[in-house]
Amino acid sequence: MTYQEKLSEIRKQMKADNVEAYIIPSADPHISEYLPKHYKCIPFASGFTGSAGTLVITHDFAGVWTDSRYFEQAAEQLQGSGFELVKQKVQHAPEYIQWLAEKLEKGAAIATDEKLLSILLGDLLTQQLSLKDMVLLNKDYLSPIWENRPSLPAEPAFLLAEEHTGKSVAAKLAAVREALTKYRADYHLISSLDDIAWLFNIRGKDVSYNPVVLSFALINQDHATLFIDTDKLSEEEKVTLLKSGTEILPYEDIEHALAHIPAGNSIFIDPKRNCYAYAKLVPASVKIIKDTNPSTNFKAVKNEIELGNTRKAMLNDGVAITRFLIWLQENIGVIKITELSAAAQLRKFRTEQEGFVGDSFNTISAYKAHGALPHYAASAESDAEILAESLFLVDSGGQYLYGTTDITRTIPMGTTTEQEQTDYTLVLKGMIDGCKAKFPKGTCGYQIDAITRKPLWDYAINYGHGTGHGVGFFLNVHEGPQVFNPTNTPVPIEQGMITSIEPGVYRPGRHGIRIENLVQTVTLEVNEFNEFYGFETLTIAPIDTTIVKTALLEKSQIDWLNNYHAAVFEQLSPLLGAEERNWLEEATKAIS
Amino acid sequence: MTYQEKLSEIRKQMKADNVEAYIIPSADPHISEYLPKHYKCIPFASGFTGSAGTLVITHDFAGVWTDSRYFEQAAEQLQGSGFELVKQKVQHAPEYIQWLAEKLEKGAAIATDEKLLSILLGDLLTQQLSLKDMVLLNKDYLSPIWENRPSLPAEPAFLLAEEHTGKSVAAKLAAVREALTKYRADYHLISSLDDIAWLFNIRGKDVSYNPVVLSFALINQDHATLFIDTDKLSEEEKVTLLKSGTEILPYEDIEHALAHIPAGNSIFIDPKRNCYAYAKLVPASVKIIKDTNPSTNFKAVKNEIELGNTRKAMLNDGVAITRFLIWLQENIGVIKITELSAAAQLRKFRTEQEGFVGDSFNTISAYKAHGALPHYAASAESDAEILAESLFLVDSGGQYLYGTTDITRTIPMGTTTEQEQTDYTLVLKGMIDGCKAKFPKGTCGYQIDAITRKPLWDYAINYGHGTGHGVGFFLNVHEGPQVFNPTNTPVPIEQGMITSIEPGVYRPGRHGIRIENLVQTVTLEVNEFNEFYGFETLTIAPIDTTIVKTALLEKSQIDWLNNYHAAVFEQLSPLLGAEERNWLEEATKAIS
Repeated sequence: MTYQEKLSEIRKQMKADNVEAYIIPSADPHISEYLPKHYKCIPFASGFTGSAGTLVITHDFAGVWTDSRYFEQAAEQLQGSGFELVKQKVQHAPEYIQWLAEKLEKGAAIATDEKLLSILLGDLLTQQLSLKDMVLLNKDYLSPIWENRPSLPAEPAFLLAEEHTGKSVAAKLAAVREALTKYRADYHLISSLDDIAWLFNIRGKDVSYNPVVLSFALINQDHATLFIDTDKLSEEEKVTLLKSGTEILPYEDIEHALAHIPAGNSIFIDPKRNCYAYAKLVPASVKIIKDTNPSTNFKAVKNEIELGNTRKAMLNDGVAITRFLIWLQENIGVIKITELSAAAQLRKFRTEQEGFVGDSFNTISAYKAHGALPHYAASAESDAEILAESLFLVDSGGQYLYGTTDITRTIPMGTTTEQEQTDYTLVLKGMIDGCKAKFPKGTCGYQIDAITRKPLWDYAINYGHGTGHGVGFFLNVHEGPQVFNPTNTPVPIEQGMITSIEPGVYRPGRHGIRIENLVQTVTLEVNEFNEFYGFETLTIAPIDTTIVKTALLEKSQIDWLNNYHAAVFEQLSPLLGAEERNWLEEATKAIS
Repeated sequence: MTYQEKLSEIRKQMKADNVEAYIIPSADPHISEYLPKHYKCIPFASGFTGSAGTLVITHDFAGVWTDSRYFEQAAEQLQGSGFELVKQKVQHAPEYIQWLAEKLEKGAAIATDEKLLSILLGDLLTQQLSLKDMVLLNKDYLSPIWENRPSLPAEPAFLLAEEHTGKSVAAKLAAVREALTKYRADYHLISSLDDIAWLFNIRGKDVSYNPVVLSFALINQDHATLFIDTDKLSEEEKVTLLKSGTEILPYEDIEHALAHIPAGNSIFIDPKRNCYAYAKLVPASVKIIKDTNPSTNFKAVKNEIELGNTRKAMLNDGVAITRFLIWLQENIGVIKITELSAAAQLRKFRTEQEGFVGDSFNTISAYKAHGALPHYAASAESDAEILAESLFLVDSGGQYLYGTTDITRTIPMGTTTEQEQTDYTLVLKGMIDGCKAKFPKGTCGYQIDAITRKPLWDYAINYGHGTGHGVGFFLNVHEGPQVFNPTNTPVPIEQGMITSIEPGVYRPGRHGIRIENLVQTVTLEVNEFNEFYGFETLTIAPIDTTIVKTALLEKSQIDWLNNYHAAVFEQLSPLLGAEERNWLEEATKAIS
């Protein structure tokens, strides 16, 4: 069936139901960032494969709402599909709601698969549409026309031992139950896969990059039930879970369980990370309490075992990165290297590391002007050859059984311009200022963001993305609740959180520079004023110093860099061969 | 009548009405910071004269809820009054609501004079109390027992010419009306006196420090009515207002006007700056739209005339400050100087300046350990003698017909300790970093706050107050909407705003240091990344350099200080006598 034919089949169903518009969001019932094939509805319906977007279909229009990262890609992929590109101003903002409100007549019916809407989005949509007496209907118009729709993934799951995660499932459940008591909540629904993975010390391979398992959890003071395809667990694993106080039921039974919560109870649901359809299954006699999942906050603060394991992942990742940097230097101008072949080579070095499971996200391998696109993904068509000049930006990460990494290095491939050198030095200044920040307990991400940007702002330079995001323990490379960006998110930075610091400079058509380390929050000092926190750098890999304009760095910044490089050499050299060690010694030598 | 007797009279009225608790806030129907005598209810009822607090009276308890600034003062003033001090954890937080909810029985009636509650507080109170089925009653139990209650102030008001304010009343009304159209609001009630003063180019002397007139304004697309004691205006002024499109009605007529807004209309009301009682006068058939007063945003962005006039005020204020610094230096150890006598001397120097109207707030004149209390107010009892050692902190400001000033200098009076010198230098570093910050359009106060604190945080030092507040044009020394502090207030800093930058270090029992300048937001540069803003310093007065540890300053900070002092000398010296000029030349000479 062509996209045009699919569109026509969708419109037939709309007509039969008197529906004026059909919305297809990019999500699954777990409101995931990465989707299993079963839920890749937008590529199925329109051919557009960007990771963010929404389809809106009316009887005389069909559009893909997406943001500037995907304008080129969407324009190309949508040719002849019957869909038009609608350029979104703000990433992730549901701008199509305003469009629908203006376009459609009063009282119109709008449909969507409510399993693919977060509660937050569902509430917003309902509220905005109600202003024009429009109604929202729950319809799935894709399944009836989706021949051989991929089934849900059936990859085996596996449990992590307590020695490995530092906390037992029983202890984690107890902490969640304590939080429920504070909220006076009797039940708690968790749909977000990383929360479930953390809580039950379970991992899987159901989606790309995130080692999670499709599942739901329903918890009260007496029971904790994991709703999961039971074939994914061995008998031994089932027994382990049972012993931890976890009952197991089939994945699809969550619907029945939610619909049968006894009247008079209350249920705690995170509106950003649960789907609208399931919230509606909860009987009206059950009070819904909405806030961020307690497990999201617990998960963000890593325990000593998780931190120790993560340090091991950082070491092994540092070895892979070092080998990659050596390989690049030795082979540039010798063999043909492209963005894709370089990324493959880096993955090879990571694969050689013990416990490597896969990439933690799609590697950004971006040469020269491609580096100026902060979310560039090289494709067979765009794959640029890397030459012995200008800058090569590589943002990549690994999932190891003992931790998640995320690192960006920008590498001078030969001659560089004055502007490249200055920009590089300023990004380094910002990254160092972020990494060596000292701040009182209670400080939020927006304050660290300002401190990191200041060295760039001083030169009238800014970057359009956030400074940093939370990172999981052998889990999602993007996790909340903390975030380092200019928005006023009031989440204090806690001890034990792992966050990235990754400022950048992007000059369209010329070059892009980003340098990224992961850091752990630690206590530095307690005095009459407060408890002061700071960051311990977790990422262990050399940062190019050959194009640094040292005159632009303050002494304290040079000291930080030299100390960092001394630690890099000390920690990585025992894991390297003799020649590699010599290379690293040179790469990490102090600058002045 | 003693305070005990007043308490007993209040309780009699409570009993007659079956009221279990009576609340007396510190406010007036304009939700002002400074109150006319008529509304000084807390001093009348309890003897406590602190500027922030709430009285709560039940049948078996009477307490003053206030914050740490006033613990000592309250404990002393409340002796024998029948009131106890209740220590508030957070400034301005209505912590007594929780106490009432826990203390009283379900269904209890609580009373207060609803003219003294902001809508925000009234809504919060009603909502919290309703959880226990409690009701709020509108009662004034003070007037019946307040013999010779001071009448409302009858000071004459006066109009400022358009040449002086840079914008006519008609143009300001047009801007407000445009905002109302955007909100689809038919009417607009303004109760906040600084908004009214700005909008009608009117000033007065009804309260201390703020040059405002007791009044209300009610505006729609066709009419703008100022409700004011008509005796405060001359016939000529009335004609001027009428010509600008402003009708005049007696102050108390606002109640009738609100109660008679025709059904089907909507009214825009700022819930933070209007009283609960008046919001309740609006007929139920009129829709209330709540947001920040448009005039608050307009007023914050000064026009060129206001900025030019303010610069003149800064020059004259700088002359007064310079003379004060000379006087201190010449007289310390020669005559007896105390905190109060020094403040009086400073006021004398200001009074000599053309157009000086009065202090813009109660001068903080704090020697040595008193400086460690950020809101210290010297009294006859506390008045310390200033000796030829340690630090003397003076935070003061003037109201001039052409602008409002606010400046803090910390002055070494003789020998100082290492710690005093280091702390002083770090505060100076922070102040300079704030003043020379460069930042993209859209940056909010919490980001400037972080940049200003960073030099102190680097040394594990912090201060408990905000970094800066908005300042009016010959108006309130504290005005919104912008604020430089760690809270996540999402108000971008706009060009033309005037804000203070005043970091500090406070070591209880030892010393306090604060250095404060006012700055104006200006555009520094427009480039491919953004429009970059920065600050032009408005305050023109020397900053002591004799105890600066230059080794702790970066070159860019020393450059800023030397450039600032060159400007101070250049601008102030023509206004000074020969000897004063010599002194200033020495005080402002470059450091290295």
